[in-house]
Amino acid sequence: MFDIIAFDADDTLWHNESLYTATQTKLEQLLAPYLNGEDVGQRLYAMETRNIPYFGYGIKSFTLSMIETAIALTEGRVMSEDIQQVITFAKEMLDTPTQLLDGVHDVVAQLSKSHALMLITKGDLLDQQRKLDRSGLSDYFSHVEIVSEKAEATYQTLLAHYKLEASRFLMVGNSLKSDVLPVVAVGGRAVYVPYHTTWEHERVSPDAVQQSRYFELAHIGLLPDLIETMRKRESE
Amino acid sequence: MFDIIAFDADDTLWHNESLYTATQTKLEQLLAPYLNGEDVGQRLYAMETRNIPYFGYGIKSFTLSMIETAIALTEGRVMSEDIQQVITFAKEMLDTPTQLLDGVHDVVAQLSKSHALMLITKGDLLDQQRKLDRSGLSDYFSHVEIVSEKAEATYQTLLAHYKLEASRFLMVGNSLKSDVLPVVAVGGRAVYVPYHTTWEHERVSPDAVQQSRYFELAHIGLLPDLIETMRKRESE
Repeated sequence: MFDIIAFDADDTLWHNESLYTATQTKLEQLLAPYLNGEDVGQRLYAMETRNIPYFGYGIKSFTLSMIETAIALTEGRVMSEDIQQVITFAKEMLDTPTQLLDGVHDVVAQLSKSHALMLITKGDLLDQQRKLDRSGLSDYFSHVEIVSEKAEATYQTLLAHYKLEASRFLMVGNSLKSDVLPVVAVGGRAVYVPYHTTWEHERVSPDAVQQSRYFELAHIGLLPDLIETMRKRESE
Repeated sequence: MFDIIAFDADDTLWHNESLYTATQTKLEQLLAPYLNGEDVGQRLYAMETRNIPYFGYGIKSFTLSMIETAIALTEGRVMSEDIQQVITFAKEMLDTPTQLLDGVHDVVAQLSKSHALMLITKGDLLDQQRKLDRSGLSDYFSHVEIVSEKAEATYQTLLAHYKLEASRFLMVGNSLKSDVLPVVAVGGRAVYVPYHTTWEHERVSPDAVQQSRYFELAHIGLLPDLIETMRKRESE
């Protein structure tokens, strides 16, 4: 029924956002002595948003935004040893083992027997490859695509590159904005599996969501059953 | 004769290393008031080398290494406004228009009429895509591959992915280490077109070079003639 089942990676296959949240907490603690209760998280998010056109996604981009936020919020009073500490946070993030979400290994192993699997992830090339290498999942994926943005045009390019019919392409991910809505818009099928926390940048308004059609699962472990149900329904 | 002609990008199609060199000069000027003639370039190169396993290649990685070098060389005395200035250098680098090397546009346009062209470049995903978009060359390339490292295994994976015979694959680039020796090692053909300056990290010893066989051109404008000569020789 599907020629390819594609998966998002961060927060779909393995934990990611929680690592950023934990690092943001460390930054708040680091800057607390300089501040009078200013909202570090809000300023950091504003800085990240402003920096995406320059630096894109991923840990290096996040780190440069943390440094700029630290300098701006402290009006230049932040000491360079604390800036060095922020870079050390980044290296700790990069050294963190890839922690799979519950059920992911079994589902991916099972579906790889019946389908060609693809990984489509946005972010920093080296960082995403490192996570995949450490995940123990890389042998299950026939194709890996690391892209700088997941928009409709991105999916159209991928479908053309792999000579895939949109209706026979299924994308599974935790972001309505990146994994679900653009795929449905180009005629593909999508399964939304929410993660417990969503980065503000990935949130979309309910309006856009309601206009779209996709499946939603509470847990990735339910994916093989959903695919089987879809197959039966189509063949009836 | 070739199913694919692949090109490296940085310092093969457009100027790149000169932008890093110019930024390093700015860093030296920025740090001069703190220092007693220490060798900024040498310390920066050591820091970059140490950081490659964490941060990979590209402007963001270079920027984080510049910041760490500034903190280490000044023993923490560097002011945060100067660290902010380093991040501004990075944004200026990212904003710099892509400047093609002489003759590149004509050669690429000409060869694209007779061959499928591929771009194979190492570095930061977003940064490399931005340069390609600005280069005016993207329509000439059938395939674009941005990779995190250019080793023998990288080329083997690409040849397998595109179902290419190594002997019918030609790679053109300015780095013996990344574009020439690994391609020749996996059975492909390579053309070396040196750039006027080579980043220390991309230098290889003459021994490795002598063991390899490849073509060397003084200028990319000579490439179509070389390919024509190779074709004639093979068909004799």
